[in-house]
Amino acid sequence: MSETFVHEQPIRFAHCDPAGIVYFPRFFDLAHTVMEDWLDQGVGAPMHTTIPKRRIGTPTVAIHCDFSQPMRIGDILRFELRVTRIGRSSVELEYKGFHGDALCLHIRQTIVFMDLDAVKAIPIPPEWRGRIERFLVG
Amino acid sequence: MSETFVHEQPIRFAHCDPAGIVYFPRFFDLAHTVMEDWLDQGVGAPMHTTIPKRRIGTPTVAIHCDFSQPMRIGDILRFELRVTRIGRSSVELEYKGFHGDALCLHIRQTIVFMDLDAVKAIPIPPEWRGRIERFLVG
Amino acid sequence: MSETFVHEQPIRFAHCDPAGIVYFPRFFDLAHTVMEDWLDQGVGAPMHTTIPKRRIGTPTVAIHCDFSQPMRIGDILRFELRVTRIGRSSVELEYKGFHGDALCLHIRQTIVFMDLDAVKAIPIPPEWRGRIERFLVG
Amino acid sequence: MSETFVHEQPIRFAHCDPAGIVYFPRFFDLAHTVMEDWLDQGVGAPMHTTIPKRRIGTPTVAIHCDFSQPMRIGDILRFELRVTRIGRSSVELEYKGFHGDALCLHIRQTIVFMDLDAVKAIPIPPEWRGRIERFLVG
Repeated sequence: MSETFVHEQPIRFAHCDPAGIVYFPRFFDLAHTVMEDWLDQGVGAPMHTTIPKRRIGTPTVAIHCDFSQPMRIGDILRFELRVTRIGRSSVELEYKGFHGDALCLHIRQTIVFMDLDAVKAIPIPPEWRGRIERFLVG
Repeated sequence: MSETFVHEQPIRFAHCDPAGIVYFPRFFDLAHTVMEDWLDQGVGAPMHTTIPKRRIGTPTVAIHCDFSQPMRIGDILRFELRVTRIGRSSVELEYKGFHGDALCLHIRQTIVFMDLDAVKAIPIPPEWRGRIERFLVG
Repeated sequence: MSETFVHEQPIRFAHCDPAGIVYFPRFFDLAHTVMEDWLDQGVGAPMHTTIPKRRIGTPTVAIHCDFSQPMRIGDILRFELRVTRIGRSSVELEYKGFHGDALCLHIRQTIVFMDLDAVKAIPIPPEWRGRIERFLVG
Repeated sequence: MSETFVHEQPIRFAHCDPAGIVYFPRFFDLAHTVMEDWLDQGVGAPMHTTIPKRRIGTPTVAIHCDFSQPMRIGDILRFELRVTRIGRSSVELEYKGFHGDALCLHIRQTIVFMDLDAVKAIPIPPEWRGRIERFLVG
């Protein structure tokens, strides 16, 4: 039985464009916040220690997003994050972004665990792999 | 023989993250700048008139990006923009982002021409369609 | 006895620059979030209704900030917001930004209540003035 | 006879808010671009070498801005940068931001030259001081 990481954040004035809706690049910024909190609370790998101290990062190597509904200031964006694949160094994440019951955006992202000094992919550290597996879908 | 819209911009301090490389959501912002300039200079549909006056926008309904090389402050990001498909209301764009000869990112994006007041897709205005076709690959 | 509006938010990866500290323009974005929440929860004038429905905005006409300590990813930024002056159309706000007990930044901002359609300053609506006065210092 | 560093950039879709005008925190980002180009072209101290290689930064310790006119997508923002004071470690900069002949914003900023590893102010390196003096007003 897999877990889902649920995260809510309000759409702010600064997220919206002259058409009054969220400027799409900011959705990736909002999704990054979800990944940060998932790494911290879900995986036990908070970026504020992994990056400066362990020098491990999780750069994005591919991302895809379908946008189906616009969002506006004051809307609550609820992200549901799940893991769809775990490789040796890489993890595939899926984020569904809802406003109420309406699916507004659907992101699929591949991240790679990387030694920031050597600039090389590394195997997912075993103490994190087990926690990541708990979010693996079906 | 199709045209390519070429656009260069420097990577700035503000684009980079604590790992010293471009924070990936900002690449979508940089690509948006390219689309803005292409709509203006390539298509003859500058956003500063189409949005407030004609009330026509070009929201993104899907976007995909593969990142193959990181970029750093001072690098020159050269985007090559081409059109890969033209529908009734939608256009598929391809952006290849280079640093020197190295391909750093590859974006495929679908935009839709939309009546911003009715919030409905509209046929691509004919005076723009012809100009868009000049950038159509193959 | 005046009230203080207290607001906490974590410093994110995306807020930080290649030197590993918050890129200063983002502090104004973080302060804007505080103003948004204060207008909503403290004043009863949420931007998501005042801007699109009543067409009243609160643009900034002057802002000053002293930065005394850098902040880093994972730090909790606690803003304390107070009102230092109330005019006919304008309000002066003071934000002190703390990390723990350390004052990291000190913002003074003047906003003006404005009819967004007429693009003209308006008297502060009376139903908001009373609530704003509760935050007025000494 | 002092020099002025002049810099022009277009206001972009992404700079503007739901009220259709530039969201004020982005003006500081636009001004930072001017400082970057001035350090590079005016002072001979490009950030892409000074920060990663010499480990010298120029953090902002105070900034003030008066906003007198809003700006919109498609406007050309022309910044005129001058130096108003040079200290041992610090420099005071003034940016006037114009749209055509209209002054839209007026920034005064104090930066400090800093050893990024020691996190300590340092005397302005002499090879840069002479170039900075050429922009000193009066």
